[in-house]
Amino acid sequence: MTRPIILTGDRTTGPLHIGHYAGSLRNRLRFQDSHEQFLLLADTQALTDNAHAPGRVRDSVIEVALDYLAVGIDPEKSTICLQSHLPALAELSMLYLNFVTVARLERNPTIKDEIHARGFGRDIPAGFLCYPAAQAADITAFKATVVPVGEDQAPLIEQTNEIARRINAVAGRNILPQARAVIPRSGRLPGVDGKAKMSKSGGNAIALSASPDTISAAVKAMFTDPNHLRVENPGKVEGNVVFNYLDAFDEDRATLDELKARYRRGGLGDSAIKRRLEDILQALIGPIREKRAALARDPAHVIEMIRRGTEKARCRTDATRREIVEGLGLFML
Amino acid sequence: MTRPIILTGDRTTGPLHIGHYAGSLRNRLRFQDSHEQFLLLADTQALTDNAHAPGRVRDSVIEVALDYLAVGIDPEKSTICLQSHLPALAELSMLYLNFVTVARLERNPTIKDEIHARGFGRDIPAGFLCYPAAQAADITAFKATVVPVGEDQAPLIEQTNEIARRINAVAGRNILPQARAVIPRSGRLPGVDGKAKMSKSGGNAIALSASPDTISAAVKAMFTDPNHLRVENPGKVEGNVVFNYLDAFDEDRATLDELKARYRRGGLGDSAIKRRLEDILQALIGPIREKRAALARDPAHVIEMIRRGTEKARCRTDATRREIVEGLGLFML
Repeated sequence: MTRPIILTGDRTTGPLHIGHYAGSLRNRLRFQDSHEQFLLLADTQALTDNAHAPGRVRDSVIEVALDYLAVGIDPEKSTICLQSHLPALAELSMLYLNFVTVARLERNPTIKDEIHARGFGRDIPAGFLCYPAAQAADITAFKATVVPVGEDQAPLIEQTNEIARRINAVAGRNILPQARAVIPRSGRLPGVDGKAKMSKSGGNAIALSASPDTISAAVKAMFTDPNHLRVENPGKVEGNVVFNYLDAFDEDRATLDELKARYRRGGLGDSAIKRRLEDILQALIGPIREKRAALARDPAHVIEMIRRGTEKARCRTDATRREIVEGLGLFML
Repeated sequence: MTRPIILTGDRTTGPLHIGHYAGSLRNRLRFQDSHEQFLLLADTQALTDNAHAPGRVRDSVIEVALDYLAVGIDPEKSTICLQSHLPALAELSMLYLNFVTVARLERNPTIKDEIHARGFGRDIPAGFLCYPAAQAADITAFKATVVPVGEDQAPLIEQTNEIARRINAVAGRNILPQARAVIPRSGRLPGVDGKAKMSKSGGNAIALSASPDTISAAVKAMFTDPNHLRVENPGKVEGNVVFNYLDAFDEDRATLDELKARYRRGGLGDSAIKRRLEDILQALIGPIREKRAALARDPAHVIEMIRRGTEKARCRTDATRREIVEGLGLFML
């Protein structure tokens, strides 16, 4: 009962892909035995930049839950819960907005970068600017001490801890723990086209439900070393997407190191490394796809699983909210 | 059952004073017979600029509720409810933040003025910048079509209606009605010192629980016409606080007009008009003070009244939230 609490999850904006698998899902399979793990289906957060496409956000709830179960997340070990159905998160978000200034939100490097990347300019939805406070609500409501995030998201954890310290200071006691950002060793997996970010909307992702043909076609089209025109030429491993993927998924590190050396020297063709990668991906995705398809035939079962997890999460988050309201000495009926 | 719905209320930052009585409370006594009236004890909103003094916000909940009952608000006719205990308001606030840009919030004249008046500069609490979205949540959650506001707050109702139209547009049907700002005919009552705003913190207010001596002293100290040095001199009625108050509270308009004429001509002393005002205020506040003191002896009864009103308001606001969530097609467990 003293396992550290971990909070993680995904915005429900589409089914997950092998980038999610490499960057987070497979870590969660390990965490679910050593940690008390909560997985948030972040539909409320998905709305911060999808408010005009709520249908996609809705449909993706089941898609992401299917992905979780298909890769081996065990709802008996990890609690899968739906953000929009945890009112304490909205209540704490609104409370926390009083403990952070607009200037501080605007200085947040993650927000700054994302505002730039999304081309929002001055027309940022207010919900987007405020999402660090909402994220602080998510993390603290579960009293999570471990939060896996991408490297670019570490400043958000800093902001969460600032808010938690302020709440504790006003309450005069340590209600909320400090959280630690855990950044995965493996960097972000690039898209199959070599672009830095794999995304469904970018059309450069391999979904966890991809068919054998789709996987095959994606690997064939994959970006290698554009100057490696003949098998006998030396090739570059760095920036070579096929090797990026082999780094992420090939468990036979010795053979992989040997292949890299041969590729660098010359004498190893792109087709050979692509064949190796394709075999690995087919073996990885095949069972996930089949389990996912089987689960998808019984959506009521998946919804019931989300309902149970959300109920458990609701007890937890409501209890934290009550503790904060009591700690601050606010009125309680 | 078809009475128009009115939403109004007060931030719980201290007991109410006769400025509140003149500007809003006595209108509510009329509205409670012709409208379905909800009175919000706005403790959540009070926190937007009192987050570091939550004790005052808490204590004022009962104070404001006592003021309501003491002036004659009838909880069988008007629903008195506690904002922090209506989770749908926080949930809708967070949703609405996605339908308004930061630039739009910053352009809001009310927010601009208040940011200036409070000296916030760039260090505005984010909750303060976002409060128009929270106010839109309050108004729309009750489907209020009538919202009494000060003249300076009319732009907030415009913003509420903008958000409501956006929600209706995405939902493809008219879930939320448009609200109409009702601005009281009588302008704002100045402080006893002649300052534009009467406020407890400014020390220039007469509380609804003021003792006879306090009322007497306040009227004696009241600002009149500084150039009206002798009884026989002509005096100014405009900007004369005693006449401002007589305008607000003297029901014998004919006599008042006569007094104004005499004061302007010369021959009417400040002490005479002050005596008249004091009599009126003692007669007004006396029964309120006594009823308030009697009610204050049984706080459990007041809390039970707030609990019942909040329960009724919770049903109402939860129903609207569900309708919006369904209308937008979000996921519902």
